[in-house]
Amino acid sequence: MADTALKPSNQSLDTVIAALRDLLGDRLSTANAIRDQHGHDESYHHGSLPDAVCFAHSTEEVAEIVKICSAHEVPIIAYGTGTSLEGHVIPTRGGVTVDLSQMDAVIEVNPEDLDCTVQAGVRRKQLNEYLRDTGLFFPIDPGADASLGGMSATRASGTNAVRYGTMRENVLALTCVMPDGRIIRTNRRARKSSAGYDLTRLMVGSEGTLGIITEVTLKLYGIPEAITSAVVSFPDLEGAVNAVIATIQCGIPIARIELLDDVQMDAINRYAGLDYPVMSTLFLECHGSEASVAEQATSMGEICADFGGANFQWTSLAEERTKLWQARHDAAYAAKALRHNSVLWATDVCVPISRLAECILETKQDVVDSKLVAPIVGHVGDGNFHLAFVMAEGDEEEFKRADALNDRMVERALSMGGTCTGEHGVGTGKMKFLQAEHGDAVSYMRMIKKALDPKNIMNPGKIFTV
Amino acid sequence: MADTALKPSNQSLDTVIAALRDLLGDRLSTANAIRDQHGHDESYHHGSLPDAVCFAHSTEEVAEIVKICSAHEVPIIAYGTGTSLEGHVIPTRGGVTVDLSQMDAVIEVNPEDLDCTVQAGVRRKQLNEYLRDTGLFFPIDPGADASLGGMSATRASGTNAVRYGTMRENVLALTCVMPDGRIIRTNRRARKSSAGYDLTRLMVGSEGTLGIITEVTLKLYGIPEAITSAVVSFPDLEGAVNAVIATIQCGIPIARIELLDDVQMDAINRYAGLDYPVMSTLFLECHGSEASVAEQATSMGEICADFGGANFQWTSLAEERTKLWQARHDAAYAAKALRHNSVLWATDVCVPISRLAECILETKQDVVDSKLVAPIVGHVGDGNFHLAFVMAEGDEEEFKRADALNDRMVERALSMGGTCTGEHGVGTGKMKFLQAEHGDAVSYMRMIKKALDPKNIMNPGKIFTV
Repeated sequence: MADTALKPSNQSLDTVIAALRDLLGDRLSTANAIRDQHGHDESYHHGSLPDAVCFAHSTEEVAEIVKICSAHEVPIIAYGTGTSLEGHVIPTRGGVTVDLSQMDAVIEVNPEDLDCTVQAGVRRKQLNEYLRDTGLFFPIDPGADASLGGMSATRASGTNAVRYGTMRENVLALTCVMPDGRIIRTNRRARKSSAGYDLTRLMVGSEGTLGIITEVTLKLYGIPEAITSAVVSFPDLEGAVNAVIATIQCGIPIARIELLDDVQMDAINRYAGLDYPVMSTLFLECHGSEASVAEQATSMGEICADFGGANFQWTSLAEERTKLWQARHDAAYAAKALRHNSVLWATDVCVPISRLAECILETKQDVVDSKLVAPIVGHVGDGNFHLAFVMAEGDEEEFKRADALNDRMVERALSMGGTCTGEHGVGTGKMKFLQAEHGDAVSYMRMIKKALDPKNIMNPGKIFTV
Repeated sequence: MADTALKPSNQSLDTVIAALRDLLGDRLSTANAIRDQHGHDESYHHGSLPDAVCFAHSTEEVAEIVKICSAHEVPIIAYGTGTSLEGHVIPTRGGVTVDLSQMDAVIEVNPEDLDCTVQAGVRRKQLNEYLRDTGLFFPIDPGADASLGGMSATRASGTNAVRYGTMRENVLALTCVMPDGRIIRTNRRARKSSAGYDLTRLMVGSEGTLGIITEVTLKLYGIPEAITSAVVSFPDLEGAVNAVIATIQCGIPIARIELLDDVQMDAINRYAGLDYPVMSTLFLECHGSEASVAEQATSMGEICADFGGANFQWTSLAEERTKLWQARHDAAYAAKALRHNSVLWATDVCVPISRLAECILETKQDVVDSKLVAPIVGHVGDGNFHLAFVMAEGDEEEFKRADALNDRMVERALSMGGTCTGEHGVGTGKMKFLQAEHGDAVSYMRMIKKALDPKNIMNPGKIFTV
């Protein structure tokens, strides 16, 4: 929602827009259609228009844009694909949105070092298509086909995180334009370093509030020799979750272990014309050598059977696996399609795995009691799950019920040693929980923000107010 | 070396020492023997005495100590086991050393979540002994039996990092006393989170300059079902390094792959009464299921043979493996024993693996040309290796030759996209390289330091001067 009291003056904006037009020509736009497109993300949060949108082509150009905005204290919002889920890219105080989607070059791939460097606007699917002939891949896969700059900025993860980690573990280095317009490189390509403060990890997850990520150096992995996937149905949610917990506690190096509840399975069947049983379900995948994958599959079969898993079928066929995981990645869109003219509110929490069953079951009971349409789906191997409220557009009463349920779920997760967001980020949506989660630590986050961005121009009003 | 111009006034010190004595009784010491013991680390750097040493027993006590020192702007140096290698714990400006070694309680182990929380003074071997009955272990193993607080503060790693990561990847959360004396918890126990700035990773590797780590929450791992280790000799250094590179590029999930050159093997034989061939050697270890370990061992055998590896013998016997890895962990002590009355200077760099052979071979040639005694040993699977200068005590000319060689090695590593230190940290020893490595990024590290520690009392003069 717009915070008009904190918007820059018209005079500042006019000066900045004129200077940006000199710099960028027609890659500076104040057209309503363009501003509209950059005024919201994929969340339920109310949008708010930027005063102008820049389409940057290089790190140096971003630096010039930041210098111009900084001189006049005009807010700057970095924008990748607009697929954030907690209002991250919404210009709540107006200002200039810097769209990085045209910075979509793969700068270098070093197959022998298992790394690559890309411009921030490269999307995850684009990178994997580019890499196909090298035998390498990049595993982090949030639901959306997000940009790697945006994924870094929100500390994204996805279905493979249980084995390969999140953006936190997979970003080796960043090029960033800092709030004063200087360009820094946060690290070298070495796999590890003890040389100074970890600015890479500070920028990963900073949601555009400390600077703009313009280039990302990523770890890559060899495409496994063997991959096998499966879908398993369980008689109840508890059995499915407990099978996951047992898998993690046994140390099986599972690559993907995803939970979808009965409501989500129904949504997927309807959306993609599939006929999975409408039951609590796990989607699984094993990566490794032929022998290792066979061994993992056998262990998984035994564990799932112990918890009532049935209709177990493994497939190694690429086509079938792609179909299976596309269905999983479309979960949010499938949920949204459950109701006409619906608004989707996707929220997430993450807890220690020993508390996962309790947390999911209590949340599911809340959903049932609330009479809301809200499928549960999650990267449960990490203790991370999502609730997607499918709400009637403009129904304030339904929104309030969802809001109350979300509050209860976050409080539950925090009381179990968990976090208010496992992978979506804070944006504006989770701001109210930050103090409860981090206590006094938030004041040191604020000190860092004030030190690096004393004018509070980088995506102001996100994560916390300063 | 002492920087007397920047030492606190005698009056401030007297006031602080009196207040600390009120707080701690005889756990505050100004005895020369105790100050001596805390005036140096295991590096070649000249020592400098603290004005007093506190032995803390709790986080709250550390907070009181910090508040007292802060009020009078007296430097505070956190001290674990004193095994740092770049002068980290040397009180170059005097002040109060806070010895955390008596904070050695394992606070909780959560076997079902594969994590534990320990006080900062718990040592790595102590933790693994404590964990033995749980079937879990903590893999990070620098050469010394260091404290987990110190290992966090220097972003340590060790022989298992190629598979399990470094302290960066394995610290889930920290309790820290910040420069103003407030206590924070940097994260919850959830495996992942997108909730705000990553203060955990900021504190890991900050070398006591941003606060004092008092408790550490760590990831644990199941002890592998099968473990097998081997020692392989190579006709030349190039063959050994290229075997490592091939292993990493093939994606073999090796747990340990360590290089020791001929000089180091000779040192180990003499130190431990062993009879390994005096050749370039790899120490290897595979972890996993029986089938997976057998598969890895077969692949490793083929790769090593391709590069001339010989005398290959795998062992799964715990006793033999322990002996083998103890020999590896004693490498520095063995090197020091090569000469009587010697001073050891252990330095390290880390490069992308594609440049590792070139970097090691050029460095080895430098060592040969310099006529210095300086074995090479390294965690080469990460691209990380060490040079240990074994110098005659007080021989300034020899020190200068070592210094020049170290400069050349670091410049070489930086020119190859590497870092001036892979795991030892900056301390005072690598300060001069920080700007060359990070450029303008250093100025943002300084901004963070100034914001969090405006009085510059936390381990001042380390990493950079402010």
